[in-house]
Amino acid sequence: MLEDHPPSKASAARWSLYLRCLEGWERDGLRTVASRQLAETLGLRDAQVRKDLLLLGNFGRSGVGYRIDELTQAIRQAMGLNRTWSALMVGAGNLSRALLRYRGFRERGFRVDAIFDIDPKLVGKEIEGLAISPLTLIPKLVKEKGIEIGILAVPAEAAQLVADTLANVGIKGILNFAPTVLRLPNGVRVVNVDLTIQLEQLAFQIQTDLDTDD
Amino acid sequence: MLEDHPPSKASAARWSLYLRCLEGWERDGLRTVASRQLAETLGLRDAQVRKDLLLLGNFGRSGVGYRIDELTQAIRQAMGLNRTWSALMVGAGNLSRALLRYRGFRERGFRVDAIFDIDPKLVGKEIEGLAISPLTLIPKLVKEKGIEIGILAVPAEAAQLVADTLANVGIKGILNFAPTVLRLPNGVRVVNVDLTIQLEQLAFQIQTDLDTDD
Repeated sequence: MLEDHPPSKASAARWSLYLRCLEGWERDGLRTVASRQLAETLGLRDAQVRKDLLLLGNFGRSGVGYRIDELTQAIRQAMGLNRTWSALMVGAGNLSRALLRYRGFRERGFRVDAIFDIDPKLVGKEIEGLAISPLTLIPKLVKEKGIEIGILAVPAEAAQLVADTLANVGIKGILNFAPTVLRLPNGVRVVNVDLTIQLEQLAFQIQTDLDTDD
Repeated sequence: MLEDHPPSKASAARWSLYLRCLEGWERDGLRTVASRQLAETLGLRDAQVRKDLLLLGNFGRSGVGYRIDELTQAIRQAMGLNRTWSALMVGAGNLSRALLRYRGFRERGFRVDAIFDIDPKLVGKEIEGLAISPLTLIPKLVKEKGIEIGILAVPAEAAQLVADTLANVGIKGILNFAPTVLRLPNGVRVVNVDLTIQLEQLAFQIQTDLDTDD
């Protein structure tokens, strides 16, 4: 199924949201769910939810809906989340410290196995039990630990150089927190995190409320 | 136009992306742009882009495309970005420190005017020139400074209580970094930032590449 109709990034983004709903309902003791419940909770069209779920296989049962455990497993499988991903972090500033403390990453199977910084004063110090290494050790540690993902938390002006280094040593994907557009060879994926976008979305919603109140 | 067809959150999310492209092109000296260029850059359908832009007004000119300055201004206006928003931050940990240093917020008109923490050892200390205040001062400072937005960077177990406090003093929107679902009265908007979702999207893209290579 997946190979005939490769899912779009947009479908995959919604799978992440479905997964969070499903896990919550599973914790609450629910066993089955209708696509309509997902649609209502997330403000999507029912047809959209059914289409996204159909990409995972034919799990819906007429009159019963979807089994939550089956659906959860199918989403995890399709998204590559039924495994552990080894990641490295570059930049040992406040953001990295916050991210390392963020228990969500580990819970979802993302394990930060190395952290690097250019500042010699930081090298050797520990954050959350992880010793900060110099950038020169990136190739060695990537190879030794089989690291596939790089989390980039460096200033914008350093980001491209670090990204090039990561691409050269075979990193397959970069989560980029630097506010800059990275140019990378084919085969290296990038997801940019722009925290301002979410603040803009909030402004938009407040603005819409204010306009409606007028 | 906006009042006849209220734009969806999905349209507004795409407006943020268009805005970033347009601003980049404007810096590069471009004056006009075709919807197709936006569509190609962002991996969207051309029809989708045109529909989103039509919500802003009738800016497209046959054979010319869109004037970048007009379109940028229209997006900023529709999203409530042609003004300054005053925000407060609760939680003075690593994430807040990283966010306060993040120049993007201020560049986009979001000004953090107060920061609060429950820890008496932190109160009075400064981050980025902003003195940390005790939670008890939230009502006073919100009123004095006309703060409308709250940025929540506290542990999950503290988030609901702080959110209630913010709602009670008239905060209109909350950017929530705590990994928990907040229940808030109508009229208080919430945008949740779940950093794991973006890491999942990256895993999905890498996984898709690996499957294709097989």
